[in-house]
Amino acid sequence: MNIRIGYGIDYHRLEAGRDLWIGGIKVPHSKGSIGHSDADVLLHAICDALLGALALGDIGTHFPDTDAAYKDIDSKILLSKTFELIQTEGYTIVNVDASLCLQEPKIKPYIAEMQQVIAGLLNLGVKDVSIKATTTELMGFVGREEGLTAHAVVLLQKITDQI
Amino acid sequence: MNIRIGYGIDYHRLEAGRDLWIGGIKVPHSKGSIGHSDADVLLHAICDALLGALALGDIGTHFPDTDAAYKDIDSKILLSKTFELIQTEGYTIVNVDASLCLQEPKIKPYIAEMQQVIAGLLNLGVKDVSIKATTTELMGFVGREEGLTAHAVVLLQKITDQI
Amino acid sequence: MNIRIGYGIDYHRLEAGRDLWIGGIKVPHSKGSIGHSDADVLLHAICDALLGALALGDIGTHFPDTDAAYKDIDSKILLSKTFELIQTEGYTIVNVDASLCLQEPKIKPYIAEMQQVIAGLLNLGVKDVSIKATTTELMGFVGREEGLTAHAVVLLQKITDQI
Repeated sequence: MNIRIGYGIDYHRLEAGRDLWIGGIKVPHSKGSIGHSDADVLLHAICDALLGALALGDIGTHFPDTDAAYKDIDSKILLSKTFELIQTEGYTIVNVDASLCLQEPKIKPYIAEMQQVIAGLLNLGVKDVSIKATTTELMGFVGREEGLTAHAVVLLQKITDQI
Repeated sequence: MNIRIGYGIDYHRLEAGRDLWIGGIKVPHSKGSIGHSDADVLLHAICDALLGALALGDIGTHFPDTDAAYKDIDSKILLSKTFELIQTEGYTIVNVDASLCLQEPKIKPYIAEMQQVIAGLLNLGVKDVSIKATTTELMGFVGREEGLTAHAVVLLQKITDQI
Repeated sequence: MNIRIGYGIDYHRLEAGRDLWIGGIKVPHSKGSIGHSDADVLLHAICDALLGALALGDIGTHFPDTDAAYKDIDSKILLSKTFELIQTEGYTIVNVDASLCLQEPKIKPYIAEMQQVIAGLLNLGVKDVSIKATTTELMGFVGREEGLTAHAVVLLQKITDQI
């Protein structure tokens, strides 16, 4: 069987005065994500799902938050580097499905652009990259707008299958 | 590759005096889910997993909670409409696996009936629809019985593969 | 289609003076997981993902926490029994990808050993068992070190496909 499944989850705190990077784009909001990199919770969850599908470790293994090289880095670079690792292993991506959990702001207006950015980085069509969003109905730390989370699943395929 | 993966997550608040709809059936309990529709957390997670597998948006895109047409609607109708979208895209469902996180009540007595309802709506056998349940060990908003959550994964297959 | 997807999630409380079993090994820490068995959150999530892929119920169905037979049991035994159920149904495992959410301690030093233990129990190579870890950035009950959670996804394949 030359297909593989991967799952990723990520968490970031929100704080006033920070930029809010989600899915590779800057979303206008009064708060932004805190992290060593640009703290893009959606791209990080996708990175982890890709790495997990091939048991390549996790985002912390490859891009440690103790490494100055990744300070404030654009997570699109991390996703591209992750995709290179997948390709080096001889795999391509079938599809990506991600869910963002955050209370505010409404993400729907930005989803088409996020899909285009991610599809471009992963050499996929936009119909192969799904981004969904939900609030937590005001419950928990997401509901209190202390932070946001993202889940992602991916299906990979060994490239030789396609020839 | 003509298979696709999808993942969905949903959250609803619980409140005394509401009906508790889960997996298409009414579960006897002192509290019920709050939502624009019947607030069936399990069916909503499955809808989102199905939509996500084909990048068709999410449940909020198709059945907005600002649309009076969906006020108090039976989520079985939403799941059927979602399945129609999947079929229109030329896909069928391989299997569905869902996990419900709630503190009370015990769901086990209702799972077989939920499986039958969902399998019927999705044209699947009951062995292709899995529903699991866990408490959160009294932790967090689920543990305090403020709400409940559900996760679902699905595998879809292009119908032409089967011919 | 002879492949199936499964997803599992598990939660355990942490308490001083208990052993912390994760992924089949004892992780040195000041707190440990509370449960009827050894409360190994990672192995439980993998068990549930395996059971869910074939709609065989959940870990609570097969190993009820009201059954004295499972008191303080090593969860490696539960995972082995679960794998037997999968094999009895005629399936083998393609790959497992799991994510652990806990604030402390750092899990990275133990992951290679966890992979070996789990791969051994499931008759897989270590590259077919992925274990990732993340904190919740100090948020929620995981961030307050009240507990820990794990998510796992699996892909199964009908054994006859391989002949």
